[in-house]
Amino acid sequence: MTTESQSQSAAAHPAGTRPFPGLIIREKSPENLEFPFSALRESIVPNEHFFIRNHFPVPQVVESNWKLTVEGHVERPFELSYAEICELASEEVTMTLECAGNSRIFLEPKVAGLQWEQGAVGNAIWKGVPLAAILERAGIRKGAVEVVLEGADNGEITKEPKSPGKIHFARSLPLPKAISREVILAHTMNGERLPPAHGFPIRAIVPGWYAMASVKWLRRIVVTDKPFRGYFQTSDYTYWERREELPIQLLPVGEMEVKAEIARPASREVIPADSFYKIRGAAWAGEFEVTGVEISMDGGDTWEPANVHGKPEPYAWRLWDYNWKTPATPGSQILMARATDAAGNIQPMDRDSHRGTYIVSQVQPIEVEIRAMTKKSPEDHYAI
Amino acid sequence: MTTESQSQSAAAHPAGTRPFPGLIIREKSPENLEFPFSALRESIVPNEHFFIRNHFPVPQVVESNWKLTVEGHVERPFELSYAEICELASEEVTMTLECAGNSRIFLEPKVAGLQWEQGAVGNAIWKGVPLAAILERAGIRKGAVEVVLEGADNGEITKEPKSPGKIHFARSLPLPKAISREVILAHTMNGERLPPAHGFPIRAIVPGWYAMASVKWLRRIVVTDKPFRGYFQTSDYTYWERREELPIQLLPVGEMEVKAEIARPASREVIPADSFYKIRGAAWAGEFEVTGVEISMDGGDTWEPANVHGKPEPYAWRLWDYNWKTPATPGSQILMARATDAAGNIQPMDRDSHRGTYIVSQVQPIEVEIRAMTKKSPEDHYAI
Repeated sequence: MTTESQSQSAAAHPAGTRPFPGLIIREKSPENLEFPFSALRESIVPNEHFFIRNHFPVPQVVESNWKLTVEGHVERPFELSYAEICELASEEVTMTLECAGNSRIFLEPKVAGLQWEQGAVGNAIWKGVPLAAILERAGIRKGAVEVVLEGADNGEITKEPKSPGKIHFARSLPLPKAISREVILAHTMNGERLPPAHGFPIRAIVPGWYAMASVKWLRRIVVTDKPFRGYFQTSDYTYWERREELPIQLLPVGEMEVKAEIARPASREVIPADSFYKIRGAAWAGEFEVTGVEISMDGGDTWEPANVHGKPEPYAWRLWDYNWKTPATPGSQILMARATDAAGNIQPMDRDSHRGTYIVSQVQPIEVEIRAMTKKSPEDHYAI
Repeated sequence: MTTESQSQSAAAHPAGTRPFPGLIIREKSPENLEFPFSALRESIVPNEHFFIRNHFPVPQVVESNWKLTVEGHVERPFELSYAEICELASEEVTMTLECAGNSRIFLEPKVAGLQWEQGAVGNAIWKGVPLAAILERAGIRKGAVEVVLEGADNGEITKEPKSPGKIHFARSLPLPKAISREVILAHTMNGERLPPAHGFPIRAIVPGWYAMASVKWLRRIVVTDKPFRGYFQTSDYTYWERREELPIQLLPVGEMEVKAEIARPASREVIPADSFYKIRGAAWAGEFEVTGVEISMDGGDTWEPANVHGKPEPYAWRLWDYNWKTPATPGSQILMARATDAAGNIQPMDRDSHRGTYIVSQVQPIEVEIRAMTKKSPEDHYAI
């Protein structure tokens, strides 16, 4: 590629809107696509760049036939059409969705599952009807403990762990979470009608939980008087944890953990020695607010605060940056970022291996090369 | 073998006490031994003939050091020594213990797991302290839902499904079952001190449930306010079942199902044509009483009642027999037995494959050969 074609490309796209490098294919069928995290520019990820995590083919939903049923341990089961849902009072939530397997590619030893790097995560503005309002209308009966959300997507899983024949995607929420105001049945994503790949007509949005809880193509809500033990919370999306004085347990993955990711530099990036370089990234903390991000250049011995943008709020990530005076001496350099949340959680350096293939939230070192150069970094062409 | 040696053998052992053919080895280490079901003679299986199902090596328990602790969601945690438990008021229960994987060898297609035939089952008289009395002393707190029973046996399971490192055997009971009077902490088995292989010093005895619930070498009782999700009820000892309108669930194996087994004839036994032959066996039904056993000679089209011994009572099996006038024509013959319980359950002919490797309770056909013979059956040497 010539210098001329490069500048043409730059001219065609104003600052901050460079041609998008495209989603990374992690699986072709069903479609599992990753947001290239190094392309992070703004807090809201556009719909067409948002990561896609499917377990089954995207179901063909005919809007006029589709119904959402509300049943189980309730006084008054009922159903709603898409038009009826869209007419109900809606609320908006800005929320970061992270796949519970994001960053899995960094695990050693290697584990099974889609090999997500940094970009099975995104932040969007979701608008919809509070689940609490729907449950109130149905009348939750005494003794209810959970709410099962079932999607229209279905199929048979023939890899281990195998599914018991054809199953639908489904996950449950404990009742207190289900009736908290922030859980919504979203019909709108970043101001647009929910795209088919993101769950049209309705997707549950469960702020603060890993994305498997935000069930797409929602077709059924079932209130239960016993904890639900469906495939996606017993065979898949589980991890081992020791709680209190009990023997270790296999628990359904739930709340997100505090985590910072570095978008720039990318791994193996070559950076000019003895210059200024802006490190950038995002940090999120599930149900809590991100209160700080720190950077370490010495393997975690000392940490310097980064500039964290926006104001602390739960559920949504915060972008951050750090103005780095690069070393004068060429060579390899390890960068680390770690986040802290309002509950006092600090992103850990290590990981409990009992977590298996999920909840990969430990500090992820990035290795770059410092080289004596006169050329400026391309970052100078645009600002956050 | 000569006729002479046969009669010597018979002479040395009075009727009903023929030399015991020995337990069948299903696994050498840890020791997993099966009762040869064709040796069934009496309702109570002697301790030395009782099947043994171990997950880990038998723990070396020093009686003077051993303690049973009671803790968790209780008002007054406490511990008991072996001597203290033996001094408490005891109750007796006659109970059939069946391994949840009994009869697995008959499954097609073949499944993983120990290949038990008919004899991972036995009936014994257990004596011990009601768990309810122990829990009452500790004072169950409001909100308690389960009681976890933990054994002293432990190790790492390296076959799939792998354990998360070294674990102890543990299982939980729902609170209503745990506080029912019939669940006891047994110190005595058939009038003898509990043998080491059967859980010395204390084994929980959970009548009506498959044997994995009857935790051996009991060392800890933990009351919980959430359902317990330990290895032996999430990764192992589970099965798929559709309940109510919910998506299919992976449930912990629990209550035993109604089931009859034929002890005599054995599979492939040669039986004289046109003679009288006594078919014998046992039947059990978990938490319910066995009310009837029927025999079919025509593949399940018609059924004839068998003689069921003893009186109906829950938890314990009942022996049964059927006086069969064998066919005049030589050839292959299929025998079937099925049991019925007081709750109206009839042992089914087929099995839901979602049960995987557990709860093998469908009718098990036995194939024998009818042959023109003058010789009498060896059964004539003894009676039930």
